[in-house]
Amino acid sequence: MITLTLIGIGAGNPGHLTLQAIRAINEADLILIPRKGADKDDLAGLRRRICADVLTAPQTTVAEFDLPKRDTACPDYRRGVDDWHDAIARVWRAEIRARLGCKGRVAFLVWGDPSLYDSTLRIAGRVAERMPMSISVIPGITAIQALTAAHGIPLNEIGAAFTVTTGRRLRDEGWPGAAKTVVVMLDGDCAFRDVPPEGVHIWWGAYVGMAEEITLSGRLADMRERIVRTRAAARESHGWIMDIYILRRG
Amino acid sequence: MITLTLIGIGAGNPGHLTLQAIRAINEADLILIPRKGADKDDLAGLRRRICADVLTAPQTTVAEFDLPKRDTACPDYRRGVDDWHDAIARVWRAEIRARLGCKGRVAFLVWGDPSLYDSTLRIAGRVAERMPMSISVIPGITAIQALTAAHGIPLNEIGAAFTVTTGRRLRDEGWPGAAKTVVVMLDGDCAFRDVPPEGVHIWWGAYVGMAEEITLSGRLADMRERIVRTRAAARESHGWIMDIYILRRG
Repeated sequence: MITLTLIGIGAGNPGHLTLQAIRAINEADLILIPRKGADKDDLAGLRRRICADVLTAPQTTVAEFDLPKRDTACPDYRRGVDDWHDAIARVWRAEIRARLGCKGRVAFLVWGDPSLYDSTLRIAGRVAERMPMSISVIPGITAIQALTAAHGIPLNEIGAAFTVTTGRRLRDEGWPGAAKTVVVMLDGDCAFRDVPPEGVHIWWGAYVGMAEEITLSGRLADMRERIVRTRAAARESHGWIMDIYILRRG
Repeated sequence: MITLTLIGIGAGNPGHLTLQAIRAINEADLILIPRKGADKDDLAGLRRRICADVLTAPQTTVAEFDLPKRDTACPDYRRGVDDWHDAIARVWRAEIRARLGCKGRVAFLVWGDPSLYDSTLRIAGRVAERMPMSISVIPGITAIQALTAAHGIPLNEIGAAFTVTTGRRLRDEGWPGAAKTVVVMLDGDCAFRDVPPEGVHIWWGAYVGMAEEITLSGRLADMRERIVRTRAAARESHGWIMDIYILRRG
């Protein structure tokens, strides 16, 4: 029987790794690392570095594989994602069969936490439909926590609620309902520019937790153009960017 | 100058500790552990155990202090919390002055993550108003991530938003707006009983991440009475309980 462990490795700082994650890495027979293409090479590099830093078990093999590309031309976003997850699941099955046969422990190192805006659990579910396996999850530090730690701020006001959403939703649907605090992830296009800025504060961060970390905060009206410029320059300089922000009203 | 580090230690599993947290614990001159009273003794015990497990630096002192009690009779909840935070800040200042004078590194071990429904950052801010100090935060695994890991589920639907709220708000205000997925924390009174259960799924967990972990999931209509009974029995047996759940519509 195959056991598959999805290991949250945190938001980019090797110091985010938990003792539980280190144990799971060393209990694996096979660690599969996806190569996503040159523009995200830093991410595969982090996974390689983590394995080099903490892997001491002699039985563990680290293997890389090419991740299929998503068809971004597909007009139906959900359908495009579905097809892409199927293609990835086929690659996972082929790699696991070729390297472990039908018995052993395979692990994937998941950026952040496997529960949060990550497709690994859904892909694992598809693999499990065709190949008997048990799936377990090791939680990891998310970019949300790395952002609040970098700014030294609480996420929620006392006893209050908050909403976590995506840049796409913020742009298409506007401010989510009655929320006072909104965390925005997966925003490739600075959707905060479309938010009426009066009375709104922003805490923004790129590469949070990493050596390259950049943070900016202040009144949205004062900060938005500066964040747009800072973000563009950082993306140009690193070849890729991951950023996240919190907006709070009043 | 005093430096104060708030170290997230995760949701109760010593394996949730990050390498960054272990480093920060060993860089401290003083680690202050609050005693909250007999009913929450397991929490102080976890902090003591973590120090015993990972502390190797010779200069670090671990000291315990009695946490003032909140006046739960205060009719104004926010005011009661404010007064309580002031009282705790006075105790922190006194302990730091007595043990370090005006120079050194003091650390607090914070359950979960310092940003999430935790008062430590706010109390630190009050201490900093009266005593020059720099404050830094080390993120930790939250009960939300421990819950999703225990159930092996994603927190968000693909590209969708979710809301994190409290039991008090769910009870007083009902389901939060248009959210499909709601995480409920700090619920001492099973507020899910007041949610119209049609089409709602629940993933519940108590002591998530700990050896005592209990998880239940299913249709809210089928599970709610069983969760109420399981929770009451666990609380009776352990003398305390911390639980959390996710509700999802449709």
